Amino acid sequence: MTSTDANTAYTEMDAMNVGALWRHLGDLFPTEPTSRAVPYHWSYRQLRPYMLHFADTLSIEEAQRRVLMLINPGLRDMSATVTGLYAGIQVILPGEQAQAHRHSANAFRFIIEGSGAYTTVAGERVHMSPGDLLLTPGWRWHDHYHEGDGPMMWLDGLDFPLVNALDGAFFELYPDSAQKADVPDDLSSLQFIHGRLNPSWIGERTASSPIGRYPWAETERAFTAIAEHATGSEVDGIALEYTNPFTGGPVLPTMACRVQRLVPGFLGAARRHTASTILHVVRGEGTTMVGEQAINWAEKDVFIVPPWATYQHRNGSTSHDAVLFTYTNEPVVKALSLYREEIL
Amino acid sequence: MTSTDANTAYTEMDAMNVGALWRHLGDLFPTEPTSRAVPYHWSYRQLRPYMLHFADTLSIEEAQRRVLMLINPGLRDMSATVTGLYAGIQVILPGEQAQAHRHSANAFRFIIEGSGAYTTVAGERVHMSPGDLLLTPGWRWHDHYHEGDGPMMWLDGLDFPLVNALDGAFFELYPDSAQKADVPDDLSSLQFIHGRLNPSWIGERTASSPIGRYPWAETERAFTAIAEHATGSEVDGIALEYTNPFTGGPVLPTMACRVQRLVPGFLGAARRHTASTILHVVRGEGTTMVGEQAINWAEKDVFIVPPWATYQHRNGSTSHDAVLFTYTNEPVVKALSLYREEIL
Amino acid sequence: MTSTDANTAYTEMDAMNVGALWRHLGDLFPTEPTSRAVPYHWSYRQLRPYMLHFADTLSIEEAQRRVLMLINPGLRDMSATVTGLYAGIQVILPGEQAQAHRHSANAFRFIIEGSGAYTTVAGERVHMSPGDLLLTPGWRWHDHYHEGDGPMMWLDGLDFPLVNALDGAFFELYPDSAQKADVPDDLSSLQFIHGRLNPSWIGERTASSPIGRYPWAETERAFTAIAEHATGSEVDGIALEYTNPFTGGPVLPTMACRVQRLVPGFLGAARRHTASTILHVVRGEGTTMVGEQAINWAEKDVFIVPPWATYQHRNGSTSHDAVLFTYTNEPVVKALSLYREEIL
Amino acid sequence: MTSTDANTAYTEMDAMNVGALWRHLGDLFPTEPTSRAVPYHWSYRQLRPYMLHFADTLSIEEAQRRVLMLINPGLRDMSATVTGLYAGIQVILPGEQAQAHRHSANAFRFIIEGSGAYTTVAGERVHMSPGDLLLTPGWRWHDHYHEGDGPMMWLDGLDFPLVNALDGAFFELYPDSAQKADVPDDLSSLQFIHGRLNPSWIGERTASSPIGRYPWAETERAFTAIAEHATGSEVDGIALEYTNPFTGGPVLPTMACRVQRLVPGFLGAARRHTASTILHVVRGEGTTMVGEQAINWAEKDVFIVPPWATYQHRNGSTSHDAVLFTYTNEPVVKALSLYREEIL
Repeated sequence: MTSTDANTAYTEMDAMNVGALWRHLGDLFPTEPTSRAVPYHWSYRQLRPYMLHFADTLSIEEAQRRVLMLINPGLRDMSATVTGLYAGIQVILPGEQAQAHRHSANAFRFIIEGSGAYTTVAGERVHMSPGDLLLTPGWRWHDHYHEGDGPMMWLDGLDFPLVNALDGAFFELYPDSAQKADVPDDLSSLQFIHGRLNPSWIGERTASSPIGRYPWAETERAFTAIAEHATGSEVDGIALEYTNPFTGGPVLPTMACRVQRLVPGFLGAARRHTASTILHVVRGEGTTMVGEQAINWAEKDVFIVPPWATYQHRNGSTSHDAVLFTYTNEPVVKALSLYREEIL
Repeated sequence: MTSTDANTAYTEMDAMNVGALWRHLGDLFPTEPTSRAVPYHWSYRQLRPYMLHFADTLSIEEAQRRVLMLINPGLRDMSATVTGLYAGIQVILPGEQAQAHRHSANAFRFIIEGSGAYTTVAGERVHMSPGDLLLTPGWRWHDHYHEGDGPMMWLDGLDFPLVNALDGAFFELYPDSAQKADVPDDLSSLQFIHGRLNPSWIGERTASSPIGRYPWAETERAFTAIAEHATGSEVDGIALEYTNPFTGGPVLPTMACRVQRLVPGFLGAARRHTASTILHVVRGEGTTMVGEQAINWAEKDVFIVPPWATYQHRNGSTSHDAVLFTYTNEPVVKALSLYREEIL
Repeated sequence: MTSTDANTAYTEMDAMNVGALWRHLGDLFPTEPTSRAVPYHWSYRQLRPYMLHFADTLSIEEAQRRVLMLINPGLRDMSATVTGLYAGIQVILPGEQAQAHRHSANAFRFIIEGSGAYTTVAGERVHMSPGDLLLTPGWRWHDHYHEGDGPMMWLDGLDFPLVNALDGAFFELYPDSAQKADVPDDLSSLQFIHGRLNPSWIGERTASSPIGRYPWAETERAFTAIAEHATGSEVDGIALEYTNPFTGGPVLPTMACRVQRLVPGFLGAARRHTASTILHVVRGEGTTMVGEQAINWAEKDVFIVPPWATYQHRNGSTSHDAVLFTYTNEPVVKALSLYREEIL
Repeated sequence: MTSTDANTAYTEMDAMNVGALWRHLGDLFPTEPTSRAVPYHWSYRQLRPYMLHFADTLSIEEAQRRVLMLINPGLRDMSATVTGLYAGIQVILPGEQAQAHRHSANAFRFIIEGSGAYTTVAGERVHMSPGDLLLTPGWRWHDHYHEGDGPMMWLDGLDFPLVNALDGAFFELYPDSAQKADVPDDLSSLQFIHGRLNPSWIGERTASSPIGRYPWAETERAFTAIAEHATGSEVDGIALEYTNPFTGGPVLPTMACRVQRLVPGFLGAARRHTASTILHVVRGEGTTMVGEQAINWAEKDVFIVPPWATYQHRNGSTSHDAVLFTYTNEPVVKALSLYREEIL
């Protein structure tokens, strides 16, 4: 140490990569969370032309994955949609095949439009219809095919912003462009989806759900079955969570997926919590207040609620349901004992 | 101590309720389990006339429950069907109502014949059709009603031999003869059975399944969906386990329930394990070797496999499936780290 | 069915091993637990001469284990001390060695008097001093040696009444009379007992504690450290539970071991619960009310509290502590969701 | 969409906060983790003069906490020492008292030098000596006092970089400058540290350890007890993990703390894994290769190993032990199923 002058000390410390906590206490320990993520909304009607444009002008071979990323204005440096989570819209055309690869990031797809496509996950062809939820847990090989007509579009949900922030990202291309399908089509869904029955010959209980596809038809049956009688949540309405049949918990260790029905005229209670949320409109229209900001959403749109932002849902129709598909990093926040919530 | 004579010592110790381990070592520590339960088989064809006889001659008020108990010849002192488990056949007639009560013993019913009856469990009417599995976990009020035609018969499965051996038995009569049904009919099943979706507004995760009824229709759908493709178990064929949606584990903390399909001509591998098993024939006919004993079973029969007895299933038909409903105390044995198995 | 006469029906059913539930409902479903185990007390002063008598007259080779079993008057058929649990007093003389064997039943020893002996457990010599708790979890080879002076006596605690009731008993003699000690003496205790530090190179987390010996010296240090300040339990005083360092739970999957200090003049609250308890007096004297019965206990005695019996402890001295070592099947009852308690 | 020109499309999408995945695939999905954290080392000898300088020139009231932050050159924007973790050196002088506050970030202190100070955590005074580990789990009030002579210095470990990245940061000042000490001094340590005994009157099992202080004296006893006999890890030597007595797991949900002894001449195997590590030299000196970089460390220094960096420890002395205290975010990475390791 060469001098007793504070500024000299700070300069010398800086050169040693040493800082003075007392000069940053407020920034590092805010009174409450101040997320860089801002409330934001993407209109599917506005996005769709761009999807089609690149479907026409960019080959799948060139793109590997033809996806528009929905990037939060506050999180551009990490290409995140909200804290720890990512959403994109992917399009694939009839006859196309997207290169097989795998990554440590967990992923799922929620089908928006089209039919006739499938994803091969670890050798199993998993077929897609609108409203289906398809899982590709971390490090499973997956490639996409489209054997139907018209463009196939879906929502891609991933946790790569979290995985990258934790320096846990691994990626590998499959030696060939496509996997061999050596498992019966849709087997993982077929053997788990009915009657809460688990195949007892499968010993290992994985942290991720073994189900390749949660069909929308089953989701509709669930809503119909409890239509008039479900108590529901004062905040989220009739909110159902997709579960891992081995644990009863979230489908992926880092992301929980839910689908919620807001009955005609529904106005939810206001709540805030420390989890991040991405919402996709399956049908209907409405308004969600996020803090002071009103987000008016329509069918197929995507919008987000940052951690600790107060939100309140309203179904804009007094005659029709609104249905939202949502995903959240709540499993992460709870596993680390960082979950808090307030109902206002 | 009054003498140095060994016999005198033994006599005096006996009076003090003290024994000499060295005189009992072999009995208390056998080389391997020697169950008092013997392999046994009950023919439904033989039982049914007695069910109908008492249906005619014994009022439900008098009986409280009109049940024939299937008692293992080796376990008469505890009225057990096999180690730790009980099976009975219950009959209720049109217009009858069985008194509401509750007990700490866990129970379920597997419906054999009839229609139009229901059980009210904790205020929820749960309806019955053949093949349905209905749960009444410990200490839940339950009473039975029959509003259909013809006798209604079902298999009662309980763990009271275990509960009584552990001195954990509590029983209470409901203040009235019947509960008030203040929950929508079959709600617990309706809101859990479709699409592996859990109601997210239910916070508490109970050790017992919240599902009142696992409908047979869903079980058939599961078998059909994986008909040709299921790997299955070399011992048990296509064996599916009913699960608790909160945990992915057994439906009750003391009993696991399964349903297994033996394809035409199926001959399983031989196995023994330290769990007890009770089996009920849903359809088909076949032979199960239990140790040296051949048990020839037909539709609706009940038979048992004692702990550590070697068993091997054969479907007697080369053209038709056989389907068995089974329950076991495997969750108990595993929770206490006492499970062992050998495939021979 | 040959007749419409009820008695004929009962006789015919009996021949088919079928019973009528309505004739046994009250016995099988009592209002509350009615244990066959009765409150009972064994005086060490009375037992000791018999121990010495057989030490003199019965060789260890002949006995394999020289143990007096403390048998509950109500549970003689299963040689149990209380529901699901067993207690015995073992003696070994200088120069003796007790044959190596193993059994699926879990066991521990709590040392009463003597020094210079050790047990070899899975190749590790575990030494004994009064007050030490030594574990031999199920299926671990163990043999005993005495290289000191004077008789060595300890309390044996086992769960064989439970294991036998579940038909889970396995037993094997070691090929030789003694194991080879190929692990450093007392290593398992030495590496786990200090500072709550776990060896991070041991990956597997076993359901039973890996600790061979919980030394009394550590227990005394614990009591001394919190002497004046421990809140304690209104029922049990300053009750400390020995834990499995891998789980923080009970030392064995079927038995929890505790040591409780009753301060001078302590009079506990009365409680009943559905677990079984065996108590051994480490020091002091007092009275425990078990139901209507007063059990006056002195140093080294053993007594029991049956399930659902109300009990209340009193330290008989206003100047000295009383210390009790206790074990219970509470882990069993809780794992099966059968635990209930009432503080009166 | 106004044009079919790709660049126009990209510009318009950018204005809508939409990106093209195919232009970022390689950055977002690297072949393997490429941490921004670089291997780095802070010399205590160099830091100490600055600590003393600010101790002289900056009042504790002004600073609230007088801490030098050790900031990784690659993570300055988040004031992190390595991915997800922070380390600082705090100094407090005789007579000083540091303002009571709490934060959702988890924290611990590892004492480097001085004596006579204590931290009050949730009303309990926890005293400090060199080598002690003190915990202040998230949201517990804590304030520091120094009643001894000479400066007191310790290592502060926190997870705020993780908590801030997840937008989970909460902070609150205590209404007064100091808490009232209404719990007996050091009670939490005293009642948990001896003999693996848990107070059975404490029902709740918390995700964080209830132990305020893990005394160095106990750590030394552990090392001494197994000195010659510990197998140890080929990578880390005799590495012991501080545990949560309620779970047997890490002391905090986000950080595991360990202490490792490298025997004279120890040269460890090389390993890499996806967890972050911060290391502090308790005594001795040596060299750790981190990737291609040799870090030569001496007593009291701090250095780090980034995720997926290969590291290998060498004790520089052939006559003396080296002892390292380390902490890691391994619990986070494992809870999220993102842990991988390779031993090279």
